Amino acid sequence: MGFKESEEQLLSKVATNGGHGENSSYFDGWKAHDRDPYHPTQNPEGVIQMGLAENLLGHDLIEEWIRKNPAASICTEEGISQFRAVANFQDYHGLPFFRQGVAKLMEKVRGGRVKFDPDRIVMSGGATGAQETLAFCLADPGDAFLIPVPYYPAFDRDFCWRTRARLLPIHCHSSNNFNITSSALEAAYLNAQKSNITVKGVLITNPSNPLGTTMDERTIRSLLSFANDKRIHLICDEIFSGTVFKPPHFISLSEIVESDPECHRDLVHVVYSLSKDLGLPGFRVGVIYSYNDEVVACARKMSSFGLVSSQTQHMLECMLADEEFTSNYLVENSRRLMERHGMFTDGLRRVGIRCLEGNGGLFCWMDLRSLLKKETLEGELELWRVIVNEVKLNVSPGSSFHCAEPGWFRVCFANMDDATTERALKRIRLFVNGETEEVEEKKKK
Amino acid sequence: MGFKESEEQLLSKVATNGGHGENSSYFDGWKAHDRDPYHPTQNPEGVIQMGLAENLLGHDLIEEWIRKNPAASICTEEGISQFRAVANFQDYHGLPFFRQGVAKLMEKVRGGRVKFDPDRIVMSGGATGAQETLAFCLADPGDAFLIPVPYYPAFDRDFCWRTRARLLPIHCHSSNNFNITSSALEAAYLNAQKSNITVKGVLITNPSNPLGTTMDERTIRSLLSFANDKRIHLICDEIFSGTVFKPPHFISLSEIVESDPECHRDLVHVVYSLSKDLGLPGFRVGVIYSYNDEVVACARKMSSFGLVSSQTQHMLECMLADEEFTSNYLVENSRRLMERHGMFTDGLRRVGIRCLEGNGGLFCWMDLRSLLKKETLEGELELWRVIVNEVKLNVSPGSSFHCAEPGWFRVCFANMDDATTERALKRIRLFVNGETEEVEEKKKK
Repeated sequence: MGFKESEEQLLSKVATNGGHGENSSYFDGWKAHDRDPYHPTQNPEGVIQMGLAENLLGHDLIEEWIRKNPAASICTEEGISQFRAVANFQDYHGLPFFRQGVAKLMEKVRGGRVKFDPDRIVMSGGATGAQETLAFCLADPGDAFLIPVPYYPAFDRDFCWRTRARLLPIHCHSSNNFNITSSALEAAYLNAQKSNITVKGVLITNPSNPLGTTMDERTIRSLLSFANDKRIHLICDEIFSGTVFKPPHFISLSEIVESDPECHRDLVHVVYSLSKDLGLPGFRVGVIYSYNDEVVACARKMSSFGLVSSQTQHMLECMLADEEFTSNYLVENSRRLMERHGMFTDGLRRVGIRCLEGNGGLFCWMDLRSLLKKETLEGELELWRVIVNEVKLNVSPGSSFHCAEPGWFRVCFANMDDATTERALKRIRLFVNGETEEVEEKKKK
Repeated sequence: MGFKESEEQLLSKVATNGGHGENSSYFDGWKAHDRDPYHPTQNPEGVIQMGLAENLLGHDLIEEWIRKNPAASICTEEGISQFRAVANFQDYHGLPFFRQGVAKLMEKVRGGRVKFDPDRIVMSGGATGAQETLAFCLADPGDAFLIPVPYYPAFDRDFCWRTRARLLPIHCHSSNNFNITSSALEAAYLNAQKSNITVKGVLITNPSNPLGTTMDERTIRSLLSFANDKRIHLICDEIFSGTVFKPPHFISLSEIVESDPECHRDLVHVVYSLSKDLGLPGFRVGVIYSYNDEVVACARKMSSFGLVSSQTQHMLECMLADEEFTSNYLVENSRRLMERHGMFTDGLRRVGIRCLEGNGGLFCWMDLRSLLKKETLEGELELWRVIVNEVKLNVSPGSSFHCAEPGWFRVCFANMDDATTERALKRIRLFVNGETEEVEEKKKK
């Protein structure tokens, strides 16, 4: 109403500086899908969503558990006696059995090789909330975290937007499968020092999003020792830890910490979530597992801003307490992911497309460098627009993950059924052969 | 381990500056209760919790609705077909029917005198999350909001802690029942200007927490016109709007806005929640209703940090769509609150204690000035310690609400059953008569 000229002043800088990062091809692809979403019968020519790292493959197992355990819900005759206590529960420590259940699940995902103390588990609104909470606990405005590129696009929102912290790249390259080298790490740190930026930590994802690979022990040890030497934090996002579907097996930062008596635990923080491993993103369960007592205490206070609904905590505490179920679920979930990953990468291989060799995550890091007209960022986005608008697949270009080498794309494979996966593969095949579904349909006719 | 000397540097200033405000008698009282909680049979001498503004009086109505509507839950045979869609839903716009239901409830609470557009409803993690989100949208670090004292203690956490904004007092006095006067408002604004502090808005609660009173139309109009004149925001926290139990009826800021074509709507923001009116704080449903398009867009992006669990959204969208239920609930909830308020204030009156005349909220603003040994803050805290530790009631001293006049206490009456209320009244009566339960018990024996 007539204030446009002073809008900048009327709202905060955070609200007006674009730091949310929504203007990225990562999110643009989602919008393209939202405008014209694929449906097998109602919109078979629509865009297939391969930009969402979601896991639908184990939903039937969870449904089956729910059917067998009506008392887990406060909305059933069997469970409603808990309604009053649950509806009223708003303690930022979380329901004790809920935290115990999450700790137990984390142990199980790590093959029982490490224990987690429920009292170190801090709830937050999804991993999104967990990441931001950690950033608020550790960094002042202007402070930085080093992060290997490529990295998850929304980390800019989570780590920087409202906290005013920053992320500085550790450069990784396809020549060594995007591994983090000591020299790249040192170079990133030195660069920050030269620019007078205080580095407060290193942020990694393991399994990597977007690479779909797990980190080897040597690399984790070297990151931990780097953090120790510099007296900076090491944050490891392990939200895909339960999606590892083939060797080498997943090694948690926690295992390395436990095995290293010299390590400064005060510097170590792990982020976990039930969104990926259990396929429950709507339930908004993220947790911080910090080895630093003060961070635990402070993050717990911050969890007031994003507590998990007590209805959901209660349901999940019952489910996670059923260890037979969770054990079976994790095995079956891995098996199904391996099968889907195999089917998808085989299909790609048959048309000459290779991916970085992956063993976890809900996506492949697909190498389309041979399809680029120009080996530039612009060339990559040009190819991406063709894939989204003509091939009708929403994949995410490497540049949206801050990847410096053009031609890599993250493509998700666990948020759809087999038929849709086949359809996506068919579209890719036709595209590589210079055709489209429309052309093929016409030929058939 | 062993970094104590540099802890300040290791963590952020936010983490170490005590801005959460936990070291307040408000929270200390909770801890006293937690250490020794009253239970009618297991711990009849324990501390009765009268420091929590919770509403348990309508829980049986909600339970009854849940029993009759199993399809509202994704955990029942009748509702599990929705499980997959709901478990996966993480759109920060929220489930469309959920937002519609909240808008409809807000209309109903305002007697249908004003309409709410579901597209202006932004979800957040409780009112706590909503307040912080608004502060992030409107204020840069150092900027201030003016707020009438006494005010809700946790506003310091919500509005200032991580945003680095500040709250500056508008001084209100018992001599005119703590009403907000134009001169106090102007004085607060001038004070800020003198200190070179940018004022970004005025923050009010209606019904007032802690006063338990509703704001009259003239005051709301004058606040709105003040905000308009100064081109600053007006935030109205109306989370207790459905608890008004006797005349004068509740007048929403929205009604005034709708009736005033001159008003700059871009400056107006309302906070609502289901925690108080429906007694569901565990479900973490807070909303922002902003008349400013940019704030709606920005706050919605921020809701990633505190989305409501989709399980809970789904259950509530079903419940709120049942308008016969919500209408009956609101009437019955008011009736029960009136009854409880009457029982409690009558009991106090019989022992010579009066409260500020209230008509809403889940608490009374109790005048214990005559019981102070010294008319100072220290005198108030001395009395408070006696009440908590000897009378065994956790009430909240006015000073924890930043009240400048010693001797006022907020006492909650809707988070307990009738028997506990009677017990609390008995303890107060004995205390005023210079006795304790123990002494009385001994006399009896």
